[in-house]
Amino acid sequence: MTNKLNPSTRILMGPGPSDVHPRVLKAMATPLLGHLDPQFIQIMDQVMEMLRQLFQTENQLTFAVSATGSAGMETCFVNLLEPGDEAMVCVNGVFGNRMCDIVERCGAKLIRIDADWGSHVDPDQVKQALCNCSPKLVSIVHAETSTGVLQPLKDISKIVHDTSALFLVDTVTSLAGTDVRVDDWEIDAIYSGTQKCISAPPGLSPVSFNPKAIEIMDQRKTRVQSWYLDLSLVKNYWAGAKRAYHHTAPISMVYALHEALSLIFEEGLEKRFKRHRHNHELLRDGLEEMGFEFVVAPEYRLPMLNAVRIPEGVDDIIVRRKLLDEYNIEIGAGLGNFAGKVWRIGLMGHSCDQNHVNMLLAALRQIIN
Amino acid sequence: MTNKLNPSTRILMGPGPSDVHPRVLKAMATPLLGHLDPQFIQIMDQVMEMLRQLFQTENQLTFAVSATGSAGMETCFVNLLEPGDEAMVCVNGVFGNRMCDIVERCGAKLIRIDADWGSHVDPDQVKQALCNCSPKLVSIVHAETSTGVLQPLKDISKIVHDTSALFLVDTVTSLAGTDVRVDDWEIDAIYSGTQKCISAPPGLSPVSFNPKAIEIMDQRKTRVQSWYLDLSLVKNYWAGAKRAYHHTAPISMVYALHEALSLIFEEGLEKRFKRHRHNHELLRDGLEEMGFEFVVAPEYRLPMLNAVRIPEGVDDIIVRRKLLDEYNIEIGAGLGNFAGKVWRIGLMGHSCDQNHVNMLLAALRQIIN
Repeated sequence: MTNKLNPSTRILMGPGPSDVHPRVLKAMATPLLGHLDPQFIQIMDQVMEMLRQLFQTENQLTFAVSATGSAGMETCFVNLLEPGDEAMVCVNGVFGNRMCDIVERCGAKLIRIDADWGSHVDPDQVKQALCNCSPKLVSIVHAETSTGVLQPLKDISKIVHDTSALFLVDTVTSLAGTDVRVDDWEIDAIYSGTQKCISAPPGLSPVSFNPKAIEIMDQRKTRVQSWYLDLSLVKNYWAGAKRAYHHTAPISMVYALHEALSLIFEEGLEKRFKRHRHNHELLRDGLEEMGFEFVVAPEYRLPMLNAVRIPEGVDDIIVRRKLLDEYNIEIGAGLGNFAGKVWRIGLMGHSCDQNHVNMLLAALRQIIN
Repeated sequence: MTNKLNPSTRILMGPGPSDVHPRVLKAMATPLLGHLDPQFIQIMDQVMEMLRQLFQTENQLTFAVSATGSAGMETCFVNLLEPGDEAMVCVNGVFGNRMCDIVERCGAKLIRIDADWGSHVDPDQVKQALCNCSPKLVSIVHAETSTGVLQPLKDISKIVHDTSALFLVDTVTSLAGTDVRVDDWEIDAIYSGTQKCISAPPGLSPVSFNPKAIEIMDQRKTRVQSWYLDLSLVKNYWAGAKRAYHHTAPISMVYALHEALSLIFEEGLEKRFKRHRHNHELLRDGLEEMGFEFVVAPEYRLPMLNAVRIPEGVDDIIVRRKLLDEYNIEIGAGLGNFAGKVWRIGLMGHSCDQNHVNMLLAALRQIIN
């Protein structure tokens, strides 16, 4: 019955999870504190403070939801929307689609803006759409993990704030790998994940809400449809004066996030973003030399998620399987419209390393040529 | 900015989390596999098989929800209930109350049966209530963590199944510490947590659904209100032929659960249950010798959660703080109606050890006398 737990040591160059630094793995092995232990409360406070620095925000309500990134997405929508509200979602990949799905489950009216997969959402399109409706919020994905698009946010934020709508942004894949400026860019609500450029294991979703978003939540007429994600309850545990019990926080995951955030600030944000850009360029040059084509135009490319078309005559599954079985390297398959057509090569956090880039390029050359 | 992560080594004798075995801590430090890696799929399969053995069920849909126990509770209700349905909830503590809250958030009609805190729910009360209504499900807490009551389930299960209702049971605190027989007791849907008698860190919620419960879910007319917890999607990842991506599973938590379950079956269920009873008796004798009174009558007492009244003249907060600061021992405060009046002493999983009992009794004698 009992099975040994001895997985192979992979090099994770897919769309996440990314490799986890040995110090973070070690943090996971720290014996547990209780979820109401004063020492744990202090660790939570430190995590909140480091997350504020990472999100570049003063927002008091900045913490980590006790589940993976998609639950962070759900947290934002179920707390900000009530049945009958209107929500505008910009869609240019899988995660925009997921937002639409959740908006509908909130009983809200969905206004959907579509851009081509692999393209960014044009600010003018948002501007025009907002002439015909007054949604409560407009949401968009900063780093579309399914396509590799980096969405510029400043112009759209301005357009959204010319109306009374809230601006909600998905930064699951961008946070800690490229600039995310919550306060400068006037993002009202934001969520991310731990398993991408933060390089902690999956299991938590960092979120942040500004006072305007909190006011909207405080004015709700209906209860949030999820008890687990209800911020009017959760915030008392993370940020209330009495730190009231809500649910049992995933202690070890909070340890991991604490250590991963410490590593981020030891490196420094600017240096970290530069490392992501540098290794992206190294990978890009190598892939283009081999004849690969990027899905996304250069000015909208994510450094940490490189989507390339699978060349004619190259078998998607056989190559990825060989990479995994013979080289222990994981890259990502295409999702949705891009299944079988695109590979997604991740350079996230601790995985974003020039040795990894060189290893992957050499392995691909050996397998494909 | 960066803060060292060096918490004190606590002995966790509260209502959970419990102490985690060094082998489980070590498992947490295992480098990550991707969530679609064939090796990870195999680990998931092994976890499912071990959970079936732990729940004593053949249920195919037996897995771990990617969030803590309360999200397991929510998973059961939001998947089984639709707006307008009737649900009967038996309440004799905090977790029954939480069920009621979630039922209402599902838009279902709540039929509530109350028993005194510290008492069990009488089968006759359920029988009588069912004469006047036909709920879609009846839910009850097997081990009420807020009061220390062990609820007998067989008779109530029979009464519920004399109607067409589903029988839904909370075993967050009981599973792996006392007998839980899903198939024998005809439990249709069940959830638990990892941080009690399983002795893995908090962060996952084992669940199991029998074919009758699955049929009810398949016949839904409305979408599940939570995308993250929607079993029609989640089950394709955990149990589908294609293992389709839904969300990124919390890899390290699954490792921890795998190792904790392996430890459980190395010990054996009967031996483990006996250990819990034995240490409960040791603790009970010591506490009664000191003049403590148990909240719950002997025949309904949980072995793993001992609720005792705080004696006159003993200061709740001072004593618990001294236990923590001077002895590194955590016990639990009273919750809800029992706040300030009751202590909850946990003997769960790896924490359930005669040395721990002896240490706690000695420390209490030194502090109180």
